[in-house]
Amino acid sequence: MAQQERAIRTRQKIVLAAAELFDEVGYEAATISEVLKKCGVTKGALYFHFSSKEELAQEVLAGQVAALPPVPERELLLQQLTDEALVLAHLLHVGDPMVRGSVRLTVDQGSPHDGLDRRVPMQGWIDHNMDVLSRAKEAGELLPHVDIPSAAALFTGSFTGVQVLSKIMTGHGDIVEKVADLMRTLLSAIAVPGVLVRLDFTPSRAEQSYEEAARLRDAAAVAVAGG
Amino acid sequence: MAQQERAIRTRQKIVLAAAELFDEVGYEAATISEVLKKCGVTKGALYFHFSSKEELAQEVLAGQVAALPPVPERELLLQQLTDEALVLAHLLHVGDPMVRGSVRLTVDQGSPHDGLDRRVPMQGWIDHNMDVLSRAKEAGELLPHVDIPSAAALFTGSFTGVQVLSKIMTGHGDIVEKVADLMRTLLSAIAVPGVLVRLDFTPSRAEQSYEEAARLRDAAAVAVAGG
Repeated sequence: MAQQERAIRTRQKIVLAAAELFDEVGYEAATISEVLKKCGVTKGALYFHFSSKEELAQEVLAGQVAALPPVPERELLLQQLTDEALVLAHLLHVGDPMVRGSVRLTVDQGSPHDGLDRRVPMQGWIDHNMDVLSRAKEAGELLPHVDIPSAAALFTGSFTGVQVLSKIMTGHGDIVEKVADLMRTLLSAIAVPGVLVRLDFTPSRAEQSYEEAARLRDAAAVAVAGG
Repeated sequence: MAQQERAIRTRQKIVLAAAELFDEVGYEAATISEVLKKCGVTKGALYFHFSSKEELAQEVLAGQVAALPPVPERELLLQQLTDEALVLAHLLHVGDPMVRGSVRLTVDQGSPHDGLDRRVPMQGWIDHNMDVLSRAKEAGELLPHVDIPSAAALFTGSFTGVQVLSKIMTGHGDIVEKVADLMRTLLSAIAVPGVLVRLDFTPSRAEQSYEEAARLRDAAAVAVAGG
């Protein structure tokens, strides 16, 4: 059991170091030996877990959605959607390596020969948004004309671009404000008026919600370890 | 004069070939010798115009906004903004090398050492949107609370992301529909109701508007040559 736990930790260390490197230099320029230097793991240990740089990158891509800690349930589902977007913005703002590395791998176009499937994280976000928006519709929070699949894709795409623009213009300095702006605008178009007036888009919710979510995640981890 | 004209054409040929190559392989992997192969220009001629790959890339970045042919004036400024977004989506859909190459240079994060200023095209789009939205505000097309600089940045950022998502999921196959969706949603949040009902977001406007704009550009070019 202790051995298995050590293996899991080593694996996590490797993935985190890889994400950090992908964020810094991109997929093409990244090398396994740089990953080894960053995480201080032996070559043998790395190859026990991952057979190639591509496999490592695919793991970083696959971990993107899960890198968002679960925001505690809000009374309104559209507030939950907003707070999740703000928490993701907060993680980009503070330079969380897993999120930044994974997002860079997704957005950089790369080579058709690199074999990376960038659809994995994008589909993950679309599915997640579909779920929250469907529940918001059932709860009567959305205007009747709203098409859930279109809206789910639109939230995913526009968040991506606001992130790219903020990275270019301010190195993610203004991403929290820009994401708050985005959510306010998109939700103005799809929320029923009685819900819209109750939504809070204050940028400081980003850090607060992150802290709540991180506490929730840590508590869950302790519960698992204790169980 | 004929010599000067030849020089301009050679320069354009080089920039177009470079854009095509940047689209295919990205900035890092692109080489001057591949650009030469693509455009059939001599090394001497290329270095007469551009001293480095970086200078070529900066020219491609600088040409991004101008690569959009001017959409003829519409009665409503928000229709103009919509049609411009649709024309840009159309150019990405059909694989216009100048637009695709320039957009890839902008979005790929690159290395901090590559010296490319990706803010140039982004600021260009923000300024352009500021201009159209300011005139829309003067014309009474926007809701009173709309903040023009925020909205201009939001249109730029969200278009960028919808483009990235469409590229990843469908190789730009669905970009026109997705941009129509985006514009409908964003304008629902900022246009006055009496204007909103008059706006047309039909995806087929993309190709129609492109053809109108291309004719207008060609006519202008003939007029300049004739003058």
